[in-house]
Amino acid sequence: MTILGFDPGLATLGYGVIKVDNAGKAEMVDYGIISTPKEKNLPERLVLLEKGVKQVIEVFKPDEIAIEELFFAKNVTTGINVAHARGVILLTAIKECGRIYEYTPLQIKQALTGYGRADKHQIQSMVKTFLRLKSIPRPDDAADALAVALTHSQTNKLGGLFKI
Amino acid sequence: MTILGFDPGLATLGYGVIKVDNAGKAEMVDYGIISTPKEKNLPERLVLLEKGVKQVIEVFKPDEIAIEELFFAKNVTTGINVAHARGVILLTAIKECGRIYEYTPLQIKQALTGYGRADKHQIQSMVKTFLRLKSIPRPDDAADALAVALTHSQTNKLGGLFKI
Repeated sequence: MTILGFDPGLATLGYGVIKVDNAGKAEMVDYGIISTPKEKNLPERLVLLEKGVKQVIEVFKPDEIAIEELFFAKNVTTGINVAHARGVILLTAIKECGRIYEYTPLQIKQALTGYGRADKHQIQSMVKTFLRLKSIPRPDDAADALAVALTHSQTNKLGGLFKI
Repeated sequence: MTILGFDPGLATLGYGVIKVDNAGKAEMVDYGIISTPKEKNLPERLVLLEKGVKQVIEVFKPDEIAIEELFFAKNVTTGINVAHARGVILLTAIKECGRIYEYTPLQIKQALTGYGRADKHQIQSMVKTFLRLKSIPRPDDAADALAVALTHSQTNKLGGLFKI
């Protein structure tokens, strides 16, 4: 099964693609970012995001998409921008793939480290370990997108166990 | 010129359509709401919103679209929901119409009453007066959408004056 993860953002949207086998073992397929220039106005940037999301889905044909939920601690203006972008990502993802799952930052931390207060670096180290990578993927947004994809794969595994 | 105004929201998106003649006189064409059920999940509600926005644009064929900017005073959760919805509205509006203008609540208050601290009722009374209606349009979201459309028509007039 191919899982596509998104770390939502307006300036930088991270994506990460993993393949999970029947035993639940995950393998990295690709990761990267879709970015939109600050000079453009908001509606134009949303159009660029939609295009990018469509393209990623077209190329990797994910079975399921996992997307991080919003966490509004830092800055309300950034938060509004991210939420605008996230609306467009959710819309495009459900139209193009149909199977979307949302995870809070807490769920991601717990799934990857078993510890709800893990910091960014701990999460990214676990991404590297789980996917047997030589180094932590860069930029952060791409690593975070892989983290949400991995979270979904873990949750799926658990779901499978309970179904036995 | 036909102007379509939107008062963004996830549960209730208000729209208002006006026609403005060359002298700047505005006439009400239609108003209403697009609503999405709370029982549905966020991505499904965004799909419904997109459908509704497309339909309104198809029916009224606006030359320009005016949309209210976000104002985050009340409740962060509501704000996030509205921003998700607003992202989808902006995306759909720019794709289907191409000419979008954004106005802050302050700009709307000043355009309609000349007073930045006007309350909701004063704004709605001015909508009624400007459009020569028998009563204030209901629900509030539709009246607010007419207010943003009227704001855009006022700004246009001013733009016209400066161009002379």
